[in-house]
Amino acid sequence: MTQKVIIVGGVAGGATAAAKLRRLSEEVEIILVERGEYISFANCGLPYYIGETITDRSKLLVQTVEGMSERFQMDIRNLSEVVSIDPEHHMVTIKNLRTDEEYTETYDKLLLSPGASPIVPPIPGLKESEALFTLRNIPDTDKIKNYVDQQKPKKAVVVGGGFIGIEMAENLVDRGIEVTIIEMSNQVMAPIDYEMASILHAHIKEKGARLIVENGVQSFADNGKKIILSDGTEVETDMTILSIGVRPENELAKKAGLELGARGHIIVNEYLQTSNKDIYAVGDAIEVVDYINGSQTAIPLAGPANRQGRIAAKNMIGQKEKYQGTLGTSVVKVFDLTVASTGNNEKTLKRMGIPYEVLHIHPSSHAGYYPGAAQISLKLIFDKETGKIYGAQAVGADGVEKRIDVIATAIKGRLTVEDLTNLELSYAPPYSSAKDPVNMAGYVATNLLEGELEHVQWHEVDQIIEDGGLLIDVREPMEREFGYIKGSINIPLNDLRKRLHEIPKDQTVYVSCQVGLRGYLAARILKNNGYHVKNVDGGWKTYSSVYG
Amino acid sequence: MTQKVIIVGGVAGGATAAAKLRRLSEEVEIILVERGEYISFANCGLPYYIGETITDRSKLLVQTVEGMSERFQMDIRNLSEVVSIDPEHHMVTIKNLRTDEEYTETYDKLLLSPGASPIVPPIPGLKESEALFTLRNIPDTDKIKNYVDQQKPKKAVVVGGGFIGIEMAENLVDRGIEVTIIEMSNQVMAPIDYEMASILHAHIKEKGARLIVENGVQSFADNGKKIILSDGTEVETDMTILSIGVRPENELAKKAGLELGARGHIIVNEYLQTSNKDIYAVGDAIEVVDYINGSQTAIPLAGPANRQGRIAAKNMIGQKEKYQGTLGTSVVKVFDLTVASTGNNEKTLKRMGIPYEVLHIHPSSHAGYYPGAAQISLKLIFDKETGKIYGAQAVGADGVEKRIDVIATAIKGRLTVEDLTNLELSYAPPYSSAKDPVNMAGYVATNLLEGELEHVQWHEVDQIIEDGGLLIDVREPMEREFGYIKGSINIPLNDLRKRLHEIPKDQTVYVSCQVGLRGYLAARILKNNGYHVKNVDGGWKTYSSVYG
Ligand SMILES: Cc1cc2nc3c(=O)[nH]c(=O)nc-3n(C[C@H](O)[C@H](O)[C@H](O)COP(=O)(O)OP(=O)(O)OC[C@H]3O[C@@H](n4cnc5c(N)ncnc54)[C@H](O)[C@@H]3O)c2cc1C
Ligand SMILES: Cc1cc2nc3c(=O)[nH]c(=O)nc-3n(C[C@H](O)[C@H](O)[C@H](O)COP(=O)(O)OP(=O)(O)OC[C@H]3O[C@@H](n4cnc5c(N)ncnc54)[C@H](O)[C@@H]3O)c2cc1C
Ligand SMILES: CC(C)(COP(=O)(O)OP(=O)(O)OC[C@H]1O[C@@H](n2cnc3c(N)ncnc32)[C@H](O)[C@@H]1OP(=O)(O)O)[C@@H](O)C(=O)NCCC(=O)NCCS
Ligand SMILES: CC(C)(COP(=O)(O)OP(=O)(O)OC[C@H]1O[C@@H](n2cnc3c(N)ncnc32)[C@H](O)[C@@H]1OP(=O)(O)O)[C@@H](O)C(=O)NCCC(=O)NCCS
Repeated sequence: MTQKVIIVGGVAGGATAAAKLRRLSEEVEIILVERGEYISFANCGLPYYIGETITDRSKLLVQTVEGMSERFQMDIRNLSEVVSIDPEHHMVTIKNLRTDEEYTETYDKLLLSPGASPIVPPIPGLKESEALFTLRNIPDTDKIKNYVDQQKPKKAVVVGGGFIGIEMAENLVDRGIEVTIIEMSNQVMAPIDYEMASILHAHIKEKGARLIVENGVQSFADNGKKIILSDGTEVETDMTILSIGVRPENELAKKAGLELGARGHIIVNEYLQTSNKDIYAVGDAIEVVDYINGSQTAIPLAGPANRQGRIAAKNMIGQKEKYQGTLGTSVVKVFDLTVASTGNNEKTLKRMGIPYEVLHIHPSSHAGYYPGAAQISLKLIFDKETGKIYGAQAVGADGVEKRIDVIATAIKGRLTVEDLTNLELSYAPPYSSAKDPVNMAGYVATNLLEGELEHVQWHEVDQIIEDGGLLIDVREPMEREFGYIKGSINIPLNDLRKRLHEIPKDQTVYVSCQVGLRGYLAARILKNNGYHVKNVDGGWKTYSSVYG
Repeated sequence: MTQKVIIVGGVAGGATAAAKLRRLSEEVEIILVERGEYISFANCGLPYYIGETITDRSKLLVQTVEGMSERFQMDIRNLSEVVSIDPEHHMVTIKNLRTDEEYTETYDKLLLSPGASPIVPPIPGLKESEALFTLRNIPDTDKIKNYVDQQKPKKAVVVGGGFIGIEMAENLVDRGIEVTIIEMSNQVMAPIDYEMASILHAHIKEKGARLIVENGVQSFADNGKKIILSDGTEVETDMTILSIGVRPENELAKKAGLELGARGHIIVNEYLQTSNKDIYAVGDAIEVVDYINGSQTAIPLAGPANRQGRIAAKNMIGQKEKYQGTLGTSVVKVFDLTVASTGNNEKTLKRMGIPYEVLHIHPSSHAGYYPGAAQISLKLIFDKETGKIYGAQAVGADGVEKRIDVIATAIKGRLTVEDLTNLELSYAPPYSSAKDPVNMAGYVATNLLEGELEHVQWHEVDQIIEDGGLLIDVREPMEREFGYIKGSINIPLNDLRKRLHEIPKDQTVYVSCQVGLRGYLAARILKNNGYHVKNVDGGWKTYSSVYG
């Protein structure tokens, strides 16, 4: 019987596991060891405290050492680091960071939830840089906030356009700082694809931040006051946030001989057991199974860490619950926009060699006639043979993460794109449309599956035109004044039937409109009149988010 | 082959079917017959135009006769009523309401989407009442709005607390009118259960509307200026909206000998065919299969009407798509709150004799430390044996319909309550918590299924206390100052372990707290110390929504 459990790491995975363990048993002895001063803090809230959206620092502490010890009757040792594990003797060595004293402690089961730490690459000049920060915990937060409060920097550079980088950029802009985001790849927010990220790029710039993509930091100069990029560009800054990703805290596991994955994550089985059956691991430090494609991956998010913590607690106490893998559903606020995604993106499917189909639609967040409706750009990725949903991405000002949550749930329910047409989602004018955006995505996907609709993607259009393809823009002439695909001719949808004689039948005809809907209507008219026709998926809106 | 289709009714179901038909074929002749002047209008937006949230009347017209005729090449006959059907000769008689002329028209397939009309019962004095309105279409809307604009009524009565009644009440309050809602049953919003509606009752009153429940209109006096209720109460009013429900427009179908259901709805098979194979019917006028319990029901909502219209179009043209039944997912704005629900409620399950379990939780719409978080009251109804989800209801200021949409999707995916724990929903502080409310509902439900938690409902507590039961309120003494369950004793959660000796072991112990969470923690402590214990589900929050 499990009588004594030691947990390494006292935040998302660790604290959740500890709380669940106590609920499962009043008897088990629980020792929660945390290197930092604080346990159970709101990692995810840290950027917003720096930005002063969250003003009360104590709100970041979801639980305190005292509160949690009392409520859950556990032995919480903060400012204590587990420095080694002796799996054979079921023993760990703990270093008291207040006193530097080391001592050992035995366990029946050990849970590792050490998280992941910000990657700090050996960039020349980095060591000498002052005002260079990473953000993971409360002390990091205090440091950044103090610097902003006291030094009143005018300029800041955020290196890395992932979740944390984007959130930090927004929050520093909120503090009145001129922010430059530097991103090595061609886009921010790796979980979504390029054309979707392009919407964010425009918005970030519109909000006054500078965005530099496809450019890495080559070196720091002037004690960090100057950043030199790969292409030679120099950027002046008063402070720098390094947020280029995280790496698993695997030192303990490694030293203990636990099996690690290709990128250093702790390997666990479906019960979240490491290669040593009495050592469990959860959270950012572990490798998980990609729910969509079954491959090994790492997805450092709070939801999975919490869920895994709860499951590990059950399993350590003798139950047998399986962790089902991670879908990677995520959301982030990007100034006035929300971006959310679930499942696999095109980049991943391409890398894995999995064939897929995509579609883009741009429906309203709620009924257009009710105030406040905003356009959502929604991308659905699926298997054209089986209708299996691979993933979805959405960007917009409202109602974005709702649609992604619905699709994430549909994926878990193994619903196909056809099933999306039959989802019965709540509708009243302030909330949605009678055909919800998710239903609409289902309709378009089903039309593709059934051959009622053929389409081409934004990145294929220019080549088609170059090759002499005929592209008919079916919008009104006035709409073209705000931009159109070069080489397209204009026949407004309502004139199409009258002007069929102008359109040659011996070649594929391409049609496009603003968002894809009228293009589809045109495509149906043409198809039913004997043409072979393809619609530009997502219309001008998707095309112009990249080329506009 | 289908060469000519006549559609009766040009709004939600009818117009959608017409548009889909044209997309399916350029050849089919489509005649859309609409009694009113307008087609394709936004029924659901009408109350908000009266309330002036929607200010531009033309926005209510999603499509016009001209626009739709041109785009979809169809013969739209507005101000025309189909007055009879001759199924044997595949012929209808149409009355031109401009000229009163009648003529016949043949069809290959006929689609009925005539909707439902407001119930106007034969209440004494009703005929003589001036300023008595019902709301279904644009002319009704114009009448009500003109009356409000010109007569500037001070007082209004809304009879019936359903969707439309509640929306009208809010919109009339927005116009500065003193509103009284009169509802015959003991609650507003029939799709949800009493304790959930009670939250709305309090809010409606707080927003300045008067709410009279369990009281019907017995008669109108003074040309409608006075309303006398069943219990003799008299209510003065300057205008009255009658919104006590709708009845299917079934006259045509009845005269044509089509099979009707018990409450007069048109009966269709899963292909939406009536008892005559060449006549299809959709929308508010038909009976549908309840997706949860398989019984026949009628659910007059726009989503289903649109969906059915699209399916009927496909089937009329020779495809074979099944309508899967209706879940009844719905949402309505009630002043600053949102109420949404899906599936069956307790009342329905009780009536059908289906055993069920319920739970109530009150999680935050998003991370509590991020500004703007609001409490959601979420009720989940499920089968305790199989974990099958029967339904869910939620009330709150934010994030309400998102959770209901997720659960509606889970139901369609045949996910169980255990599966809800594994949903991977998008989380960042502005949007949710690492354990989303839906996950949380899954946790609580799973604990009930696995016997980790036993609970009692709000309506059982008083009897338990009366019978001498021991109820321990585990909140802090300060919290009790805002109200507590009479007869409960107070032992704060954190003192519980120290004070176990005060608690007798020979009887079931009941615990309660604010929302149910601490009660659950207390229950675990007690259970793991050998007690038999039950938690008051939903805590003081659920209990006090009825008794507070
Ligand atoms: C700024 C920021 C914003 C974020 N925003 C979001 C968001 O919006 N949504 C989202 O889903 N996720 C977000 N995340 C990610 C999320 O916080 C993590 O996925 C989650 O906290 C991982 O949980 P964990 O238990 O694995 O690690 P952590 O929560 O990081 O906890 C690990 C703990 O273990 C301690 N530790 C490590 N090694 C030892 C040792 N040897 N001995 C003792 N203690 C040790 C560490 O000090 C640390 O406190 C954010 C993260 C950050 C930093
Ligand atoms: C004020 C109001 C608010 C609403 N709000 C919501 C909401 O927020 N969410 C929601 O889901 N639902 C809402 N609804 C319900 C929704 O509008 C209906 O469920 C939907 O419109 C039903 O579609 P239908 O095609 O069956 O009928 P309708 O849309 O009502 O169309 C039927 C049409 O048929 C015509 N007709 C009838 N008989 C004949 C005949 N013999 N010849 C010619 N024409 C005929 C009628 O004139 C009518 O225009 C609301 C309804 C109203 C009235
Ligand atoms: C604070 C913390 C220790 C709490 O962990 P926890 O006790 O598992 O979580 P909660 O307080 O949300 O409670 C959840 C439990 O209450 C139960 N519960 C919730 N509401 C309930 C209700 N109304 N009635 C009955 N039970 C309820 C759930 O079933 C669950 O219990 P279970 O796991 O035994 O099934 C942990 O979440 C934490 O450390 N969080 C901060 C760190 C973090 O997550 N960071 C990343 C995000 S910023
Ligand atoms: C206006 C009305 C006639 C439109 O009907 P509709 O054409 O079926 O609906 P939409 O305009 O939303 O278009 C949906 C179609 O466009 C397609 N579509 C939508 N966005 C698309 C895109 N970006 N790319 C390609 N196709 C797209 C869908 O697949 C669907 O076609 P399908 O049914 O052939 O699969 C009808 O909705 C109506 O009368 N509405 C008002 C009445 C009403 O519903 N009232 C109750 C609610 S207030």
